[in-house]
Amino acid sequence: MTSSIASFADWMKQVQSTMEEALGASLPSDATVPARLHEAMRYAVLNGGKRVRPLLVFAAGDLFDADAASLQRAAAALEMIHAYSLVHDDMPCMDDDALRRGKPTVHVKYDEATALLVGDALQSQAFVVLSEGVAEGEGQATRRLAMLRLLAQASGSAGMCGGQAIDLASIGLALSLGELEHMHQLKTGALLRASVLLGALAGKTLSDAEIAALDAYSVAIGLAFQVVDDVLDATADSATLGKTAGKDAADNKPTYVSILGLAESKALADKLRDDAHRALMPFGEKARRLREIADLIVQRKA
Amino acid sequence: MTSSIASFADWMKQVQSTMEEALGASLPSDATVPARLHEAMRYAVLNGGKRVRPLLVFAAGDLFDADAASLQRAAAALEMIHAYSLVHDDMPCMDDDALRRGKPTVHVKYDEATALLVGDALQSQAFVVLSEGVAEGEGQATRRLAMLRLLAQASGSAGMCGGQAIDLASIGLALSLGELEHMHQLKTGALLRASVLLGALAGKTLSDAEIAALDAYSVAIGLAFQVVDDVLDATADSATLGKTAGKDAADNKPTYVSILGLAESKALADKLRDDAHRALMPFGEKARRLREIADLIVQRKA
Repeated sequence: MTSSIASFADWMKQVQSTMEEALGASLPSDATVPARLHEAMRYAVLNGGKRVRPLLVFAAGDLFDADAASLQRAAAALEMIHAYSLVHDDMPCMDDDALRRGKPTVHVKYDEATALLVGDALQSQAFVVLSEGVAEGEGQATRRLAMLRLLAQASGSAGMCGGQAIDLASIGLALSLGELEHMHQLKTGALLRASVLLGALAGKTLSDAEIAALDAYSVAIGLAFQVVDDVLDATADSATLGKTAGKDAADNKPTYVSILGLAESKALADKLRDDAHRALMPFGEKARRLREIADLIVQRKA
Repeated sequence: MTSSIASFADWMKQVQSTMEEALGASLPSDATVPARLHEAMRYAVLNGGKRVRPLLVFAAGDLFDADAASLQRAAAALEMIHAYSLVHDDMPCMDDDALRRGKPTVHVKYDEATALLVGDALQSQAFVVLSEGVAEGEGQATRRLAMLRLLAQASGSAGMCGGQAIDLASIGLALSLGELEHMHQLKTGALLRASVLLGALAGKTLSDAEIAALDAYSVAIGLAFQVVDDVLDATADSATLGKTAGKDAADNKPTYVSILGLAESKALADKLRDDAHRALMPFGEKARRLREIADLIVQRKA
């Protein structure tokens, strides 16, 4: 058990270091005009975050032995979409946050106009990266197109942006548990699901049964991720989190903790981890990393 | 000559009306949750604009007899990227404009957070639309991937967003003519070039010579478009333009008129139209609509 946990930690470190390099190479150099925009794009993406989405991409890639180059592209694209959403989400007209990953947010370090353009350009760059480097053969191109379509759908108004719109509209409202789950399934769940599916799709075209199993896993870890976020927001301090703690309560935003209470929220997170494990059963030993990520999401302290 | 001009006007009206329908069908319904976001996305895209980019897509599609469905997708994607850039560009932290196409801008009619999300979601939706509906058959998927890559590159920091960053950084500076042209080639030229290339690519894979000819045409009309914009900004009134006139001068932004003067700017626009016509010579009669668009860009009054 100890050796298995150690090996997951090593695997995670290796993916994170691979991705730091891949992201650095996928972003325009800060010596290229417009230099300030490029510097700010790199600031927003590099040296930060747990890289949960890339970890999911690589873990799902194990299922069907996907090649490393395709996985790196998918993971870089997803991380750019995620980073852009954080930059825009932190802006004064949205959450108005000054601290992210323990550093000043982009609009604080640069300015609002730059933050707006950084987010816009990072979204474009995600699609640049994912549309490049397709191996010869119409089958490869068809699979890559499916990956691009999934990423775009998960990012837009039927996914992440839609969830943020619902989140904005819900401040001060007493959401039901079902409404809260729907919001999070769009706001964070859609991109986590896309990470799992893109990683698997980098290996082969998926059957309906495979998609259904991966969807069940994704829904479970997506909700678990949010439940744990709410628990940490209510219990941890800003220094540990690397962002302003207790902000949701201060903003009067509905959370799992405010609806279910702390103990029941923790119990829900454990149940969702079990759901995630169960969904992976058809994939056997090859789903090991996906199982370990579900554990990580529930056990994390920041 | 009169009948040729009349027939161009008819063709233009037909493309515009086709695109109004195609855009309406390509955007989520405002009855779908999140309804306010979807309503605002439709407000930003529908019933407005000259649809210059779709006109270029359809005109370039004529060169190689591209099918109408592919052209509609490409044109809708380009128009969504264009519309999102206007929404973000109008926001208080950028140009802070209250009027666009004779109507209140999105952040005025809705709010800033919604305007931010409208732009973000429209960019995603552009890639959704362009990644869907690929026909079976050798080369179709590969060609569509090339179109997606071009659109993403033209939208990001090497294209439109990069041009906006340079534009922002140049307020109050005395740009040289070369620096001004570089800024506009990125800010508006990149998307016009993508319109021409996507329309042509919807018909067939392009040779290097064909790309070079279409690039020469695109550079000429892109600069002509901007020169005429500057002339109109200096000479027309807000009611005719449907946006705030004289704003560039008030903001102390460098323009062709401020650098070259009015008469020389008008002469430059005429020269650029001739350049555009010359670049199209290899395509013969099939380039008729592209020629007429160059004329339209230089002769327009708003």
